[in-house]
Amino acid sequence: MTHNEKLELLKQWEWKTSAYSMVLAVLSYDKMTVAPAAGAEFRDERAAYLSGEVFDLSVDPKIIALLKDLLEDPETDAETKRKCECYYHDAMKIVSVPKEEYVAYSNLNNASYNAWYKARMENDYAPFEPYLKQMIESARKLVSYRHSEKTTYDELLNDYQPGMDIEKFDKFFDDVEKRLVPLIKKVVAAKPVDTSFLTQNYDVDKQRAFMKRLVKYLHYDEDWCYLGETEHPFTVTICANDSRTTTRYIPDNVSSAPLSTIHEVGHAYYGHQVDPKYDGNILGAGMSSGIHESQSRLLENYLGRSLPFWKPIYPVLQELFPEQLGKVTAEQFVDAINASSPSLIRTEADELTYPIHVMIRYKLEKGLFNGTISTEGLDKTWNEMYEKYLGVSAKTANEGILQDVHWADGLFGYFPTYALGSAFSAQFYAKMREQIDVDRLMEEDRFNEITDWLKENVHRYGNRYDAEDVLELATGERFNSEYYFRYLEDKYTKLYHLK
Amino acid sequence: MTHNEKLELLKQWEWKTSAYSMVLAVLSYDKMTVAPAAGAEFRDERAAYLSGEVFDLSVDPKIIALLKDLLEDPETDAETKRKCECYYHDAMKIVSVPKEEYVAYSNLNNASYNAWYKARMENDYAPFEPYLKQMIESARKLVSYRHSEKTTYDELLNDYQPGMDIEKFDKFFDDVEKRLVPLIKKVVAAKPVDTSFLTQNYDVDKQRAFMKRLVKYLHYDEDWCYLGETEHPFTVTICANDSRTTTRYIPDNVSSAPLSTIHEVGHAYYGHQVDPKYDGNILGAGMSSGIHESQSRLLENYLGRSLPFWKPIYPVLQELFPEQLGKVTAEQFVDAINASSPSLIRTEADELTYPIHVMIRYKLEKGLFNGTISTEGLDKTWNEMYEKYLGVSAKTANEGILQDVHWADGLFGYFPTYALGSAFSAQFYAKMREQIDVDRLMEEDRFNEITDWLKENVHRYGNRYDAEDVLELATGERFNSEYYFRYLEDKYTKLYHLK
Repeated sequence: MTHNEKLELLKQWEWKTSAYSMVLAVLSYDKMTVAPAAGAEFRDERAAYLSGEVFDLSVDPKIIALLKDLLEDPETDAETKRKCECYYHDAMKIVSVPKEEYVAYSNLNNASYNAWYKARMENDYAPFEPYLKQMIESARKLVSYRHSEKTTYDELLNDYQPGMDIEKFDKFFDDVEKRLVPLIKKVVAAKPVDTSFLTQNYDVDKQRAFMKRLVKYLHYDEDWCYLGETEHPFTVTICANDSRTTTRYIPDNVSSAPLSTIHEVGHAYYGHQVDPKYDGNILGAGMSSGIHESQSRLLENYLGRSLPFWKPIYPVLQELFPEQLGKVTAEQFVDAINASSPSLIRTEADELTYPIHVMIRYKLEKGLFNGTISTEGLDKTWNEMYEKYLGVSAKTANEGILQDVHWADGLFGYFPTYALGSAFSAQFYAKMREQIDVDRLMEEDRFNEITDWLKENVHRYGNRYDAEDVLELATGERFNSEYYFRYLEDKYTKLYHLK
Repeated sequence: MTHNEKLELLKQWEWKTSAYSMVLAVLSYDKMTVAPAAGAEFRDERAAYLSGEVFDLSVDPKIIALLKDLLEDPETDAETKRKCECYYHDAMKIVSVPKEEYVAYSNLNNASYNAWYKARMENDYAPFEPYLKQMIESARKLVSYRHSEKTTYDELLNDYQPGMDIEKFDKFFDDVEKRLVPLIKKVVAAKPVDTSFLTQNYDVDKQRAFMKRLVKYLHYDEDWCYLGETEHPFTVTICANDSRTTTRYIPDNVSSAPLSTIHEVGHAYYGHQVDPKYDGNILGAGMSSGIHESQSRLLENYLGRSLPFWKPIYPVLQELFPEQLGKVTAEQFVDAINASSPSLIRTEADELTYPIHVMIRYKLEKGLFNGTISTEGLDKTWNEMYEKYLGVSAKTANEGILQDVHWADGLFGYFPTYALGSAFSAQFYAKMREQIDVDRLMEEDRFNEITDWLKENVHRYGNRYDAEDVLELATGERFNSEYYFRYLEDKYTKLYHLK
């Protein structure tokens, strides 16, 4: 076979795979937004069948041979080589898994999601527990087929953040614990920032009206991105011109929906701004979760919680809610949305306590996989950890263990990337501020020039490079968590007038 | 192969096919509701590829042999026989079409939809015309592979309404012309019914609030049916427990959204109430368009425009809009939503003029396929017909030729089933009134007992029987259009005090 024939074969295979991946992504979005619950079984069984087709495509011996061949072929260019490495690596993860088991896992995954959904309706952990247990066992079983020398949890951590493992995350979270837990204690003891005006009654239709203005300010265009509503906001990217984001409005919280949307728009921009030549292949979709999260958090926290961000748009909010915000200055508003206070819900947590929520989940996952923690009574273990690190304890399952969909969805090892992403953002943000006048661009309603910088320095690469390589390309430096801790220390020392 | 082995093979093939059909249905719903337009090309190309997979499955020689075999097998039960006949018939329609052509058609179909969508944005027929021309040529080409002795349009009519052809539709529409055009003229000359209050300013959010109450009244449960919003309302059924319906709110029209929704809910109930044992096979999804439309029109017109329907729910509407409707009685409101007046938009047309809109489209389609009418200048031909039969003429393309998506979507031969459906409903409705006290059930908020009657007598059969067989099972009589014409004549003679 000539080199070009090999490339043609790869292309055909990628095309097929991308067709299945596309429909599975749309099905997933559909399920989480509009699909009627009573039809779940019918759809899920068929989706599992299609996942099985993807499985077959991924581990097709002819393809594995082709990938090996291309990896050894001296004519193979660097980009193709990267693709082949990624595909090969992914195939090796599952090649020894019997297909029935893979499809059964996909079915279990759907059942587990449905059980979590129902458990949340009932606000009761008990009916979900057996599914969680099975999901963990299945994850362990699936990973066992890799015949890796690493532990299951090491493998899972590496899946979402290539290059990371327990040792490295332990180090990172040790720093989180050492540097942030004492800082949080100081903040708790300090004079609180006034946030009372944020949680008055804010008419949801007016919140929706503000959202329209906000997404315009973000230069977020419905031509390439749909904004829906779900209980648990998320973003799905189908291709360079198709991202879907959801938001959630809380009637007595004016900042939740905007900040959550700014976060999701960060994800959506990343998906949208990947070089379109990577559409439909692994370089356009296989980005590490940490880098993905760094983009959402950069928008949400580093930009979306800053005074220059709100200057042009805060008057719109004031006009919609004159009673609640008429006498609140932009400065007071921004201080309030940066206020820190230990709380129960991760997605509503402030920037400073957020990594603690993640650290707790990391410790729990690690324990669940090394056998020191059990799914039975996990709601209690959860509360003990919250009590220990944040001094708060959930009164209901929905406020505690049931708050996140991730475990129900089999995403073990995913949470830690959230905290890592925040740390990555700090490094990107520092470099961005060196190169463009971020504050002025926001004040002048030129947010698109900020996302252009991100496109040029981060987004367009997609999965062309590993996380640390992207960091180095964009900032000239490998990952350095100092940026993150210093940023938080500076910010909260100032906000709370700490010594 | 034993009989049971044959059945098992059929089952496996049906399962695969149903997985692809399910995702194609979800993709279609997604495209028409939330999918960002800029991603259409990427998605559409892949959807076309998946359609190609369905094509391969449908014409697989092994399956065609199996179907023949089962049809000849004396052990085959009646239900399986019906399935095999339907599958075989569908396969014969496309078996000789080269796959490339089938996939190319699917791509053209998507491009044509996108062109129509854009043309509507520009309110200009010209950019859509070349696509319409190509769609007609492609339809003709695809049908030519059937090597049928019938004309292309006869074949297409039979596709959507098995058993129907030009001769039969000519006869039906001749009656429509003879009996309804003179009646419409009399109505035009009569003292008009007051409808002015229907088209005042009706806040859309309040309309949404009424919709919530209305769907509850219809016992329409979001557990099995999602209600979205689109410019052009439609319904998709995925399986017995998953229907999706859309609606559209018009700020200066209070009756459009409710009546359109009642219509779509009629479709959704039909899809939902098919015997679940037919889920995922052709008996659960291949119902004739005429019977489908009869169910939506039965709800919309025969029930949804009646006084007993509105008695329990009209006060809710009055309460939401006291200024506009406070002094309008339920009787006046119901008279107004039944008022007839020649107009331009089919989906907004009243019950009496509606079949004329369809007749015009039928005549145009017939002409387009027999070569007496051209796509060039079709907007003018359209207007001439409207002028001739209804005395009105579109001023813009969106009010005229661009108003319907059907042709853009390749649905030639589909329109006539709309009028036929209305006629079918009259026959079902007459029998229903004999057997249950329809008016009382509505007045007592027991709409579910009406849909139960429909489930028992119509819905549960799905595609188990042909349209006329279902009519006979439910009403004891083959199709008889007298019910329809008499119903309209009686109703409008009374409403307009005609002699």
